[in-house]
Amino acid sequence: MIKQLTIIGVGLIGGSLARAAKKNNLVQRVVGVDRNIDQLKKAVELGVIDAYETDIANGVKDAEIVVVAVPLGAMESVFAAMKDHLPADAVISDVGSSKRSVVDAAKKAFGQLPPGFVPGHPIAGTEKSGVEASFAELYEQRCVIITPVETSAQWAVEKLQALWSGCGAEVSSMSAEHHDEVLAATSHLPHVLAFALVDTLGQMHESKEIFKYAAGGFRDFTRIASSDPDVWRDICLANGDALLLTLERYKQELDTLAQAIVAKDAKQVETILRRAKQIRDRHVIR
Amino acid sequence: MIKQLTIIGVGLIGGSLARAAKKNNLVQRVVGVDRNIDQLKKAVELGVIDAYETDIANGVKDAEIVVVAVPLGAMESVFAAMKDHLPADAVISDVGSSKRSVVDAAKKAFGQLPPGFVPGHPIAGTEKSGVEASFAELYEQRCVIITPVETSAQWAVEKLQALWSGCGAEVSSMSAEHHDEVLAATSHLPHVLAFALVDTLGQMHESKEIFKYAAGGFRDFTRIASSDPDVWRDICLANGDALLLTLERYKQELDTLAQAIVAKDAKQVETILRRAKQIRDRHVIR
Repeated sequence: MIKQLTIIGVGLIGGSLARAAKKNNLVQRVVGVDRNIDQLKKAVELGVIDAYETDIANGVKDAEIVVVAVPLGAMESVFAAMKDHLPADAVISDVGSSKRSVVDAAKKAFGQLPPGFVPGHPIAGTEKSGVEASFAELYEQRCVIITPVETSAQWAVEKLQALWSGCGAEVSSMSAEHHDEVLAATSHLPHVLAFALVDTLGQMHESKEIFKYAAGGFRDFTRIASSDPDVWRDICLANGDALLLTLERYKQELDTLAQAIVAKDAKQVETILRRAKQIRDRHVIR
Repeated sequence: MIKQLTIIGVGLIGGSLARAAKKNNLVQRVVGVDRNIDQLKKAVELGVIDAYETDIANGVKDAEIVVVAVPLGAMESVFAAMKDHLPADAVISDVGSSKRSVVDAAKKAFGQLPPGFVPGHPIAGTEKSGVEASFAELYEQRCVIITPVETSAQWAVEKLQALWSGCGAEVSSMSAEHHDEVLAATSHLPHVLAFALVDTLGQMHESKEIFKYAAGGFRDFTRIASSDPDVWRDICLANGDALLLTLERYKQELDTLAQAIVAKDAKQVETILRRAKQIRDRHVIR
């Protein structure tokens, strides 16, 4: 059993990990650190964490595992603040949606990476944010990708895997580069597309009417556009190169489809739509 | 009470209208016409329709209201087949997602439009298709847009409104042109974007892995890409001009966002994302 799990950033993702670790009896004590003291008090009230610290150094000094669950842009300063206060055998991980940027931030903050440093990313979430939105089942049957670096010790990898598996997740391992390519396609691009669609329609002069006639398909399609803008600004910038590459491919596909529509090429339009439906029906519905 | 409602095309949309009309005691008898006899037999078995005809002329000859619920590309031939067999006081409507094309098809088929002709479009559906997927509550609290033409008689407009209101829908009226602009933005563009995304990812060499790591956000975002490709091919072509105009605006927005990411302009990225979130939270969540 983990003696102390320290969660830095007690929102939807961090709070849900705390809840899951407690629910599954993986941990004796969860300490939360956040710059928002109201979130911390709320988290204690809700039983999400056992205690809180407002100072990162105090929060990590007795930690067996530290998980950093802050927006990507805040990672470096959080790592820097814990640097000289970590136990030598502490596991240090995170939940960031882009992994190369987290490794870079850690290198800048730590200089030499500690052996306990193992980046991670649970592929789970909702469009909500804040500790009130957290729940213990968020990671059940969800994928968690860990991206160990050269310096990551085997014991640290195993402890981190055990934590996520214990929360019901399926853990897999890959390089940070590969993670960032895959996530650009499957998560970052769709978010950008949804944000951009809602914003485009919002700028149109008949926007009020447009949203009035939005049906369930639109609601689902744009659900992710209600996600936290701070988190997603950081993801867009942190994984910008992989995201822009996928966006380029996507725009080519849109052009192909648009040209087929202009040419009234029913067969070509149908080919694309039918292929997409088959792909989705095969892969996505579970 | 309507003596006979004839539904041509007994799938998700037509079948749900039949079910809703029966459930709400709006109709004495529902007759279904479809080129797929298995669908018709299934529809009788399920109690969706009371009887079926495989011949459109026979199906419409005693109808008080005829609703055509076939893909847009089949509208003209369906109208042509009913032309000389309609009672003079029959209401003739449809459920097509594009309205100018339906008016054009009717003009070609009928020559002079009958006074009972009133196009309509229920803004409701699911990504499923077929009569098995139909349900009586599909139109409850959903918008139905009717787009009367100059020749539409008041009695026909009122009968059609009463049918949809009786099924629980909120009926509004606008021009076919305006309908097509609004629907291009709120429905046709999102469908095209979702189909294109799934197809793009499906063509990538690591596609299997990509879909493995797709989370709930991706599933919701792409749900509409499982829609019927025949229906959506026809919509893309029928409302191509309005769709392409909205797509152009959308691509400009994507370019703006991409440029901000390239320039690492955090403030500009955040502005767009935050505005989108505010718009969605204000308009879409109900």
